[in-house]
Amino acid sequence: MLRCVSCGKEYPSESVRHICECKEPLEMGLFSGKVRSGGSVWRRFRGFLPCQPSKKLSIFEGDTPGVKAKKLSKEFGVELVLKNETVNPTWSFKDRGTLLSLQRAMDIGVKKVGTVSTGNMGVSVSAYCKRAGLDPVVLVDHDISNEKLNQIAIYGGTVIKVSGDYGDLYYESLKIGKNKNIYFSNSNSPYRIEGYKTISFEIEERSLPDYVVIPTSSGGLFRGVLKGFVEMEKSGILDRMPVPICVQAEGCSPICRAFDSHEKKIKRWHDPDTIASAIANPYPPGGEEVLRKLDDHNGICTTVSNDEMISAQLKIASEGIFSQPASAVGVAAVEKLREKEEIEEGAEVVSIITGSGLKHLFPRPTEHLEFSCDISDLKDLFEKSRKDEIE
Amino acid sequence: MLRCVSCGKEYPSESVRHICECKEPLEMGLFSGKVRSGGSVWRRFRGFLPCQPSKKLSIFEGDTPGVKAKKLSKEFGVELVLKNETVNPTWSFKDRGTLLSLQRAMDIGVKKVGTVSTGNMGVSVSAYCKRAGLDPVVLVDHDISNEKLNQIAIYGGTVIKVSGDYGDLYYESLKIGKNKNIYFSNSNSPYRIEGYKTISFEIEERSLPDYVVIPTSSGGLFRGVLKGFVEMEKSGILDRMPVPICVQAEGCSPICRAFDSHEKKIKRWHDPDTIASAIANPYPPGGEEVLRKLDDHNGICTTVSNDEMISAQLKIASEGIFSQPASAVGVAAVEKLREKEEIEEGAEVVSIITGSGLKHLFPRPTEHLEFSCDISDLKDLFEKSRKDEIE
Repeated sequence: MLRCVSCGKEYPSESVRHICECKEPLEMGLFSGKVRSGGSVWRRFRGFLPCQPSKKLSIFEGDTPGVKAKKLSKEFGVELVLKNETVNPTWSFKDRGTLLSLQRAMDIGVKKVGTVSTGNMGVSVSAYCKRAGLDPVVLVDHDISNEKLNQIAIYGGTVIKVSGDYGDLYYESLKIGKNKNIYFSNSNSPYRIEGYKTISFEIEERSLPDYVVIPTSSGGLFRGVLKGFVEMEKSGILDRMPVPICVQAEGCSPICRAFDSHEKKIKRWHDPDTIASAIANPYPPGGEEVLRKLDDHNGICTTVSNDEMISAQLKIASEGIFSQPASAVGVAAVEKLREKEEIEEGAEVVSIITGSGLKHLFPRPTEHLEFSCDISDLKDLFEKSRKDEIE
Repeated sequence: MLRCVSCGKEYPSESVRHICECKEPLEMGLFSGKVRSGGSVWRRFRGFLPCQPSKKLSIFEGDTPGVKAKKLSKEFGVELVLKNETVNPTWSFKDRGTLLSLQRAMDIGVKKVGTVSTGNMGVSVSAYCKRAGLDPVVLVDHDISNEKLNQIAIYGGTVIKVSGDYGDLYYESLKIGKNKNIYFSNSNSPYRIEGYKTISFEIEERSLPDYVVIPTSSGGLFRGVLKGFVEMEKSGILDRMPVPICVQAEGCSPICRAFDSHEKKIKRWHDPDTIASAIANPYPPGGEEVLRKLDDHNGICTTVSNDEMISAQLKIASEGIFSQPASAVGVAAVEKLREKEEIEEGAEVVSIITGSGLKHLFPRPTEHLEFSCDISDLKDLFEKSRKDEIE
């Protein structure tokens, strides 16, 4: 059964709808069950999943490590763990949702798949479509960089560069999908949420934290992670919920703006201006549900600036992980919330590092030392010049 | 004990030497032992490792999946598995070797670390150095692209762009390292080989193949993989060796040239010309040992052209994995060797996909369909124009 997260209207599970007539997202009912031991994430938490991914499609999503951030834990005065989603098959958390969403498409005999994406999701959907033998249609922003386009183009398929409001494109794609029989695996698809919730199960397996920090754009990841924890609580796997922290980029933060002014409705954000392109949806389709979930679980909602996320990106690199700016917002938020004492000293915090920094190589976020020389002068460079800088 | 792979001269295990007086690589003796069950690759194969990686350094290297390539298996008439090393922490196999090499450096109290790298290794060493609290010196080719430089720069440290022969730079760095007390974690360091061999243990765990295909540049990965299989044979874990296949880029293939002309010595390759920059060492320091190992194990040595590797890159993408051109050479080689019937029909083949395609985004290796339109015209685009191409 699919149920509207807002008005509660129900649709049969066979429906390919993603949103209700009222335009809010549809979501599956809560699963409850037991965790199996051993095997992949898809096997261990099988009882909580709406479908079982086939070997034909799965290329080992999830089962990502929780990396202890020793330096940052000390600096911030918390126990910080980085949930490293950059080691997924296409190097972002999207693969978990794409797998279930595409499995669903295959199970119901879909012939044509599309997605709306600025980056990570376009890559992920293209990869899994290609593996499934389908050619996707990827709707991208008209000024997508070549760097990002190439990551999608390697898988073939069709790219349509669309100018206009990126938020509207979500709804437009669903209309076209309905008319033309194209299954759009967009950010808020119910099966995506089911895929994303596996992150929570893995987090709990390692150690249940006090806070979970979630970079938030359309709201799919946030909703998925919350649904996972709620299902575990319902199933008696855990007896308390971690506090969810929703983080947006200052230059495009429609959810946080509504949260701060105690609004229940999201207003469109005009003129987004942030380097965190992966979380820059100006009119997030799941935004109001995120607000409700924040309310239900006494969550925190905060923004970080470009400078703060670049600084956080370098801090995350000091733990060995190269994250996207959009993925670094979580750590930037932890730093801010500790300063404001909204997170208490010694708390256990998991920040989800959503995607690889390789996908977003410019601008270069560092000031490293750089020298040039001929090989015949290399010895001299080490011996004489700027000695203490090189050694 | 460290032993020269060529003249057999022995050095104490405490030595930080990488190469013998005769300039050939030093290697550790063969380990034998038992495999433990459960836990990470570093735990399961602990008995075969020269040191145990600490939690302070390790960020979950290895334990990479073997992805069944169903389409390519059918196309080539073999059972092809892609060993997906692109999901390592810095998205290449180098992390396995860097971990052990840097663990060794930390265990003996090294204060300064360097490396010589065109890409993957520079990134990997920089990441682990930063995690260990050390600032590395990375010697790179003078014309390194900004795209590659940024991946190293994120971790800070010092970059020296060197003009001159890249093959010579390896030896020059070891001299400087000795004089200035800098531990160079270069391609052939004995601890790297020990890290790389864990790939073989994981391959065997899944299913012992008939052939293992190894993209080869300096020879470190090839030697590591072979050492792993030899140790397993010695320990009674397996009773036959897979046939090793060494693959080089046609435009820089000093090992294959020597192999084809039955030479025992490697001659420097002049004017390397290949898009596979990650495997373009014109004077590989472990090349002669690769030749000996090929001889010992009835191995195969072959080259592939730029066009063949781009074609293979697209074929690998059809299985869902975006590989570097240098990582695609293995699959290109399988296709060629099947055509020449040097690999028999139905053989089980594992090709090691060494690193992520995100590290090498140009040129765009595809011909996908691309359209542009305004959001208001999107529906029309799907309805009318070039209908059968989009749908």
